[in-house]
Amino acid sequence: MNQLILSDWLLRHLTQHAFPSRMPNHRRVYEAIRRAITEQVLPSGSRLPSTRNLATDLNVSRNTILAAFDQLLDEGYVAAKTGSGTYVVYKQTDDFVKNLTVNAPLESTSTHGLSKRGLAASESPESQLNSHEVQPFTPGEDDYSRFPIALWRRLLSRHWRALNPALLDSSHDGGYLPLRKSIADYLRVSRAVNLTLDQVIITSGTQQSIDLCARLLSDHNDCAWVENPCYWSARRVLEVNGLKLHPVNVDNEGMAPTTYDFRIKPRLIYTTPSHQYPKGVVMSYGRRRLILDYAQNSNAWVIEDDYDSEFRFEGRPISSLQGMDQHGRVIYLGTFSKVMYPGIRLGYMVVPPQLVSAFKNGLYELQRPGQVMIQAALADFIQEGHFASHIRRLRQTYGERRRLLQLALKPIASVGARLSMVDSGLHLVVEFDQAIDDVAVAQTASNIGLRVYPLSNYGFGENCEKGLIIGYAYAATEKITHYGKLLAEVIQTTLKTN
Amino acid sequence: MNQLILSDWLLRHLTQHAFPSRMPNHRRVYEAIRRAITEQVLPSGSRLPSTRNLATDLNVSRNTILAAFDQLLDEGYVAAKTGSGTYVVYKQTDDFVKNLTVNAPLESTSTHGLSKRGLAASESPESQLNSHEVQPFTPGEDDYSRFPIALWRRLLSRHWRALNPALLDSSHDGGYLPLRKSIADYLRVSRAVNLTLDQVIITSGTQQSIDLCARLLSDHNDCAWVENPCYWSARRVLEVNGLKLHPVNVDNEGMAPTTYDFRIKPRLIYTTPSHQYPKGVVMSYGRRRLILDYAQNSNAWVIEDDYDSEFRFEGRPISSLQGMDQHGRVIYLGTFSKVMYPGIRLGYMVVPPQLVSAFKNGLYELQRPGQVMIQAALADFIQEGHFASHIRRLRQTYGERRRLLQLALKPIASVGARLSMVDSGLHLVVEFDQAIDDVAVAQTASNIGLRVYPLSNYGFGENCEKGLIIGYAYAATEKITHYGKLLAEVIQTTLKTN
Repeated sequence: MNQLILSDWLLRHLTQHAFPSRMPNHRRVYEAIRRAITEQVLPSGSRLPSTRNLATDLNVSRNTILAAFDQLLDEGYVAAKTGSGTYVVYKQTDDFVKNLTVNAPLESTSTHGLSKRGLAASESPESQLNSHEVQPFTPGEDDYSRFPIALWRRLLSRHWRALNPALLDSSHDGGYLPLRKSIADYLRVSRAVNLTLDQVIITSGTQQSIDLCARLLSDHNDCAWVENPCYWSARRVLEVNGLKLHPVNVDNEGMAPTTYDFRIKPRLIYTTPSHQYPKGVVMSYGRRRLILDYAQNSNAWVIEDDYDSEFRFEGRPISSLQGMDQHGRVIYLGTFSKVMYPGIRLGYMVVPPQLVSAFKNGLYELQRPGQVMIQAALADFIQEGHFASHIRRLRQTYGERRRLLQLALKPIASVGARLSMVDSGLHLVVEFDQAIDDVAVAQTASNIGLRVYPLSNYGFGENCEKGLIIGYAYAATEKITHYGKLLAEVIQTTLKTN
Repeated sequence: MNQLILSDWLLRHLTQHAFPSRMPNHRRVYEAIRRAITEQVLPSGSRLPSTRNLATDLNVSRNTILAAFDQLLDEGYVAAKTGSGTYVVYKQTDDFVKNLTVNAPLESTSTHGLSKRGLAASESPESQLNSHEVQPFTPGEDDYSRFPIALWRRLLSRHWRALNPALLDSSHDGGYLPLRKSIADYLRVSRAVNLTLDQVIITSGTQQSIDLCARLLSDHNDCAWVENPCYWSARRVLEVNGLKLHPVNVDNEGMAPTTYDFRIKPRLIYTTPSHQYPKGVVMSYGRRRLILDYAQNSNAWVIEDDYDSEFRFEGRPISSLQGMDQHGRVIYLGTFSKVMYPGIRLGYMVVPPQLVSAFKNGLYELQRPGQVMIQAALADFIQEGHFASHIRRLRQTYGERRRLLQLALKPIASVGARLSMVDSGLHLVVEFDQAIDDVAVAQTASNIGLRVYPLSNYGFGENCEKGLIIGYAYAATEKITHYGKLLAEVIQTTLKTN
């Protein structure tokens, strides 16, 4: 097998195959080569191309190739011969061939046998982009390389040594009490949330929090108000629970219900008042009163998703909607995956007093939470002040990236693109005129290795707002100006020719 | 009080509070800190942040902070300790206690505002018993005091030290690959599951596995066959997903559908063929064929919950239903919470090849799995042989307890109670005549500190089978004979007077 042909085969596989949207590069490359081996594109005995050549051909880093090779070595698909390279040693057994044929439909994105809701739930708008790696500007990606991992390991180890058997059990009562206390203290002071620690319930993240709200507070075919545009994952979890979504437009004061909207009585109102996702708007005081009063009068529950309130860079801190609520209609949600690391799977909800027992029981019955050891380490991390200093460092880092990106994007004003100027969060939004095809712009950016999301993917109906969502948390500080200029050029070029 | 949180609080206070327009900055800062002290945001004994940090956070000059601190010192709110900073010395007053009591109504168990499905999902039959602690014989409780915790901590530590950033991410691709490989190897050999490692998907436990199946493979108002009696948590997760449950009776060959049942076409068939929960029956070969053929002909999916197959004490190993399936209709579920420890929250599913992509994506989109570090440690635990030797030890321990309990319960035959005699699992079932009130018997046992569950709680309809489910995994070996005799007496006494 000629090496260039192999590279072509791998490239085609990498771009055509529907990988999960956030699968790391080295896993994709590994997967492609493994398939090349099992499908006899690379038969037993053939030599793999050099890592350097392969890196060039596939347009990925050499480390990516090395990591993929390591995994193939570990799993016995290939063997290294000193001084002469890496060879396929995999033998085709009959069993495996048989399995392969059974497995053949794997490649297809066959949806045979999925239910209607299953079909909807297993697709995401992000995967529509043919790009196959996390790149600068991917929204929702954080730079957890700055997480103090040695310190964290020490805190965890301390609890594993202490051998408290309760920390090995599943969690029956809303989560580890000292963690709930730390969260309550933090929210009371920092977010002006009005609560006692009983109201704090630990979940395994925002998805699970929204899921629990949808199941405990609404029934199939009930209506939920969501923002238009809206956080995609929230939308999906509500839909899979059978809720009928009613999109309410967002203006520069946040969610902006009209007389028409008020007639569509919701059971749930899902909102992101501190930093609207994705547009970034802060909900005004008046609008907050309006939403709370309406919820009280129409007997609806408000789900306040305060997903990135830790990242405020200038100006006054924004208080929570929950803190203004006089009638116990707000469920407040927060997460640790953006501040700590994504795989920690810890979030929390603050529920009104009258719902505490039901939420504790429902959480246990439906989700059987556990991982109390991690909760204990996190409680220490907060109580000993590490959480605060970690946030402080992240704010500095992300604030600097934000500033540089804003600078680099300035030129796009000349083609009529508008940059959102809110002062918190982990992403910026560029707004286009309605006539612009933002999916095409995102695709063009993706072709040169910059991953941004089209704003219209988050909207409802035909006349979605157009623009780009640009995450800056993941892009390295020393490179962000360079990337930002490239992106500005893409935007300028595409908008000019339009 | 953590410094950053305090800064947020102060900033909010500084911007929201209506200060006289010409009040100098240092007076405003003084006022804000004084309030933080009197409102216990900064309780007595806590250390103030450094003037430098505070100046940065509040975006004022350091002189402003110094002037504010001076005034607080003068007025006795704080004291300076040489070389160690400034501390709050203000003492708490009654005012604060009064504020605390405002929050009291927390305890109420009101269900006001829950949805219909939420009301159902937040109650459990077990909680009907007035006992609220784990006692000997509580079904579903395992003795994880035998878990080799020091070894486990070492394995975890190894991965935290290795600092592979992928282990901090959420899990995008069905779980950590080496763990999926270990599971595939184990299941292929030990449970005769027919699979490649692609088909293994790591979940956070059986609840989440069933949840994902229900959402991806069925729609609201679809029908699901369940066993009668049935594992309670499975039933609840299916119901909360809008499935209409059709109970199929269990006889001594397992699930036993009749001509009537065959006419109620299911979309899902939930079954526990290796060790029916709760009755303990093993599904016969003929019945397995029947279920598989019916599923194939009626286009239904079979969910095989193999929840405690590791605990077989005598007789031949029971193969999985999945291993007999020729048409890819079976989703096989397993869990680690019974073998490792309950809070580990790791389970797995084996899905047919054509569903692999949909399940990987659906899992990511709906549940955002993570905790890859734990998955990595578990992969080592299995690969290095600790899993196998741990299971062997548990089998010995639990087998001995089972034997002793069977002996102690022998006398109940004299009052017509029948003890199930299957040779695997972690619980025994005592069967009564229909006329017996098994809830009352369970209550009597609970009154003397023995927790068992009434069999009728797991049944459907009016004529539920009566009996007791008796877990023996949690009762200490040296005490189980004593507890067993006590339980036998309760049963004999209640059944005689009946």
